[in-house]
Amino acid sequence: MTAGTLHTVSVGPGDPELLTLKAVRVLGAVHCFAFFAKRGRSGHAVGVARAYLRPNAEALRFDYPFTTELPPDHPDYRLAFNAFYEQVAGMLARRLDAGLDVALLCEGDAFFYGSAMYVFDHLAGRYRHDVVPGVTGMAGGWARACLPMTHGDDVLSVLPGTLDQAALTSRLAVTDAVVIMKVGRHLPKIRAALSAAGRGADAIYVERATMADERILRLDDLPDDDHPAPYFALILVPGRKRAR
Amino acid sequence: MTAGTLHTVSVGPGDPELLTLKAVRVLGAVHCFAFFAKRGRSGHAVGVARAYLRPNAEALRFDYPFTTELPPDHPDYRLAFNAFYEQVAGMLARRLDAGLDVALLCEGDAFFYGSAMYVFDHLAGRYRHDVVPGVTGMAGGWARACLPMTHGDDVLSVLPGTLDQAALTSRLAVTDAVVIMKVGRHLPKIRAALSAAGRGADAIYVERATMADERILRLDDLPDDDHPAPYFALILVPGRKRAR
Repeated sequence: MTAGTLHTVSVGPGDPELLTLKAVRVLGAVHCFAFFAKRGRSGHAVGVARAYLRPNAEALRFDYPFTTELPPDHPDYRLAFNAFYEQVAGMLARRLDAGLDVALLCEGDAFFYGSAMYVFDHLAGRYRHDVVPGVTGMAGGWARACLPMTHGDDVLSVLPGTLDQAALTSRLAVTDAVVIMKVGRHLPKIRAALSAAGRGADAIYVERATMADERILRLDDLPDDDHPAPYFALILVPGRKRAR
Repeated sequence: MTAGTLHTVSVGPGDPELLTLKAVRVLGAVHCFAFFAKRGRSGHAVGVARAYLRPNAEALRFDYPFTTELPPDHPDYRLAFNAFYEQVAGMLARRLDAGLDVALLCEGDAFFYGSAMYVFDHLAGRYRHDVVPGVTGMAGGWARACLPMTHGDDVLSVLPGTLDQAALTSRLAVTDAVVIMKVGRHLPKIRAALSAAGRGADAIYVERATMADERILRLDDLPDDDHPAPYFALILVPGRKRAR
């Protein structure tokens, strides 16, 4: 029997109209799909993809083992996530070995900070792969903000908000355009770093871009006492329009 | 009369199946579209979009004033390009003023190193805007290369190949994942910088990803005496899988 193909399918930033034609074709073809979700939540990627999936396809839901119970630098955190992704890979491998094609859904672009990469890492080389790229959350954000990001020879840096303040500040000093990911509870530190690097005035705060409840405003207009930013909120700072 | 809407439409990395549903809807609706092309070439973005455009829509073709006759740091280069984009903006403004919706096509993602940004800069605030984000060339590249780029807390830097060797080397030293854009004639310098930063062994060379004639190989396997790399070739170096 020929093993199935693992389709890693990027579903884009949230608006179901921002799926690619290829993603729609693959989602409509597979009889098995898999997705990640936080416990107690319906799962973001599957919500975006739902309209394009076969109603009778097998759905494999994988709940992340935990999100905030352990700090990410705790050794048990990595071990638990590694075991989790290994278990997911095993479940998908059983379907693939049975000749079934499987679509693993991923928000944004799957190979850009996507959970699907960790599964891919376990299965790479063992099955046929088809990776469907997608519109990233940051591209959805700068489109909705009407914010041209990188002109000519601008450098763009994508920084996780988890970096410490000194590291953020020094990296902000040597870049033109900036995207800060994983803002969440790191917002006060990120504000301080942007201010120290003299980039705060141009910073745009983006939550759930391209979705019905998106929120896009100048970071300076976001109150300090606002509710904690979601983990997936972004900060965008456009480039300096360096000559090409 | 109500002025038209300027739709800035990203058409993705090259495979026409990597357009978004939204891009296809907009392209099928407008009675006027505009695109850039090099003199004597058919135009890349319009080639990708062609199947989705109305056959009787007005096509506005804009030939870049020059590409290699002047170095980009020459003052006349910026002046000529600025005059060019101002002229393009004027042509589009006439259609928009007449109430016509116009789609300006752009390869990859329009607000990520796209020519459409320069037109947008001239027209911003004067017309209703709708920016359709797209799959970037780099995302098309790492999908086709089956190369997960950024895990966990990896930093990603997007660097123009036009930077001098010392600047490239020092920036390579402080990043995890790297995309080098605009490779072209800068390839020997880029190789030297990657080697000096100890990142050469992981570098992947990508030409025309997702297109019929794509070319993806380890940079180490690209002969030194290969034909000059195209301007739009990319180098990808995956991240270091930093813990999330």
